Amino acid sequence: MTGTDEQPTPYLEIDAARMRGNIARVAALAASRGVSMRPHVKTHKCVEIARLQATAGSAGITVATIGEAEVFVEAGFDDVFVAYPLWVTEAQAARLRALAERATLSVGLDSAEAAGQLALAGPQRVLVEIDSGHHRSGVPVEEAGSVALAARSAGHTVVGVFTFPGHSYAPDRTTTAAHDEATALATAAASLRGVGIEPSVVSGGSTPSLAASLSADSEITELRPGVYVFGDAQQWELGSCTPDQIALTCVATVVSHAGGRVVLDSGSKALGADWSAFATGFGRLLDHPEARIVILSEHHAVVEMTGPLPALGSRVRVVPNHACNAVNLADTFTVLDADAARVVRRQWAIAARGRNS
Amino acid sequence: MTGTDEQPTPYLEIDAARMRGNIARVAALAASRGVSMRPHVKTHKCVEIARLQATAGSAGITVATIGEAEVFVEAGFDDVFVAYPLWVTEAQAARLRALAERATLSVGLDSAEAAGQLALAGPQRVLVEIDSGHHRSGVPVEEAGSVALAARSAGHTVVGVFTFPGHSYAPDRTTTAAHDEATALATAAASLRGVGIEPSVVSGGSTPSLAASLSADSEITELRPGVYVFGDAQQWELGSCTPDQIALTCVATVVSHAGGRVVLDSGSKALGADWSAFATGFGRLLDHPEARIVILSEHHAVVEMTGPLPALGSRVRVVPNHACNAVNLADTFTVLDADAARVVRRQWAIAARGRNS
Repeated sequence: MTGTDEQPTPYLEIDAARMRGNIARVAALAASRGVSMRPHVKTHKCVEIARLQATAGSAGITVATIGEAEVFVEAGFDDVFVAYPLWVTEAQAARLRALAERATLSVGLDSAEAAGQLALAGPQRVLVEIDSGHHRSGVPVEEAGSVALAARSAGHTVVGVFTFPGHSYAPDRTTTAAHDEATALATAAASLRGVGIEPSVVSGGSTPSLAASLSADSEITELRPGVYVFGDAQQWELGSCTPDQIALTCVATVVSHAGGRVVLDSGSKALGADWSAFATGFGRLLDHPEARIVILSEHHAVVEMTGPLPALGSRVRVVPNHACNAVNLADTFTVLDADAARVVRRQWAIAARGRNS
Repeated sequence: MTGTDEQPTPYLEIDAARMRGNIARVAALAASRGVSMRPHVKTHKCVEIARLQATAGSAGITVATIGEAEVFVEAGFDDVFVAYPLWVTEAQAARLRALAERATLSVGLDSAEAAGQLALAGPQRVLVEIDSGHHRSGVPVEEAGSVALAARSAGHTVVGVFTFPGHSYAPDRTTTAAHDEATALATAAASLRGVGIEPSVVSGGSTPSLAASLSADSEITELRPGVYVFGDAQQWELGSCTPDQIALTCVATVVSHAGGRVVLDSGSKALGADWSAFATGFGRLLDHPEARIVILSEHHAVVEMTGPLPALGSRVRVVPNHACNAVNLADTFTVLDADAARVVRRQWAIAARGRNS
């Protein structure tokens, strides 16, 4: 139960103290290993939160799209990595050129063809994406050098290699994924050296594998986690955050007790429809750890739980399965910041919501 | 392959001729059975499309939230049903009162307590929601009369009963769901008559069960389908639309051939993360029926397909699993309308995007 009765539900609420704690804890961990933080702002899409991360020492930011880059460069961020294998149109190339005039911009690529296409934007700082086991995008590690050479031939400056060890999103795989990441990055870096390019950036990281990446024997120079700032139900179930570290919830109203269950107004248009293979439901309730969302429609979340049901009209805090997708559905965060005397409520814009291209 | 190269992907594209065909076909089917159409505009959230549905003879519109109602009443729609068991705050009650002054507004409820809470908004036209087998919200059919009496005691005018036969979203369940719906609505209507309330509205319908609802021996007076206007991969796989009826696609660019597969830039932030139990992937390609999206991240859709891969940089049309959630992620539709002479491209606003409350 939280919030005021008058802010209509469902809405996203941030516990600012927990969020600051998450940012500080991971910043300290990375600093203790001499590894830079370049947090992925796709998770929060919020200028104010990126500034908190910068204050905690992050070296720059990571984005997924040109549109996200534009929002953050406009807000004053001057070191931005588009960690995505872009394939640019003429119009997007012009936008990249404009960004590169205002910030240190780096761009991902995973093929010689993409390097050629990127030449539409003129010479760029690029990182070669490699596949460390997630099997999404990225070249096989041994091909990193040849793609780097192609990028150099196309006029770009190759500054390093990057990967996303997304196979860390499975129970008991975080250590394995971090090991795969370390091995793959080392091999890829060697592949670049083999063609005469010394990588200055060796970039990896995901929230589940974060700690393991830092404890692995690795050439990694920077980490790009996103979700660590909030936590979510996936991280809770993977064991990469504790419930009392979860800083983002969707405040929802109990609208029905149909069938002896709880029906909330936080459906998939508020939480996102994510359900990983390892998930135990469509989301969790922060104050009822045993509860599970068993049916999720656009505006209904049906919850099974033990004990007395929360009353009709009462409000509960729902932990989305995947913070990034829940955030991208809303326009603002309600930020709760408590000091000894009072609770301050602020509205922060999700400035880069929907900036998919 | 479609669109211009310069509109950045991913974006939502409507084939206007197909959409008009879908609207006309279902309108004619309903008219032939003497059943009113009250399409659910949560699917498209677009004033222009609701006007096409009105021109085709729909009696009014269905919405899920007060915020959606506000958008459409502001645009001139004057008969709006909020098909949701609302639990209103004081502020929401004031918004409902304001809407009821400008339009014929009807509201759902599924408990005596909600009827009492709704009295904050003054006397309202209400429909009692019943559970016809989907087991989400709604009262058991035999309790419809007692909830209707409570609503009347709270000052409301009970105009009928409604249900959503959502268990039609399963292979080979459409006929069963329509039968359940007909039986449940008849029993609920009798329950109202048993307490002296004659229902003037007996409302049901879902896109998969639409045809079966109309052929069933039923007291149904109106249908509230949403997705029929576009179709989507779920409807395709359920057999409730054919591929050549699908009017909504997400145009995406092939950004990578990593691992010998196709990586598109239409991730879950463009398509939505929906994956029903019966789905064969995270979405389909309209022009490659054998293709399946096997991995979906926020900005990556990894496609497995046979035959030669679409070239890097080429564009493909992706059919989202669930049109409603894909639409709610975008701000505009690109509408393609062809006549004999040329193709006209228009941008239509998704005016009610994000109006969750």
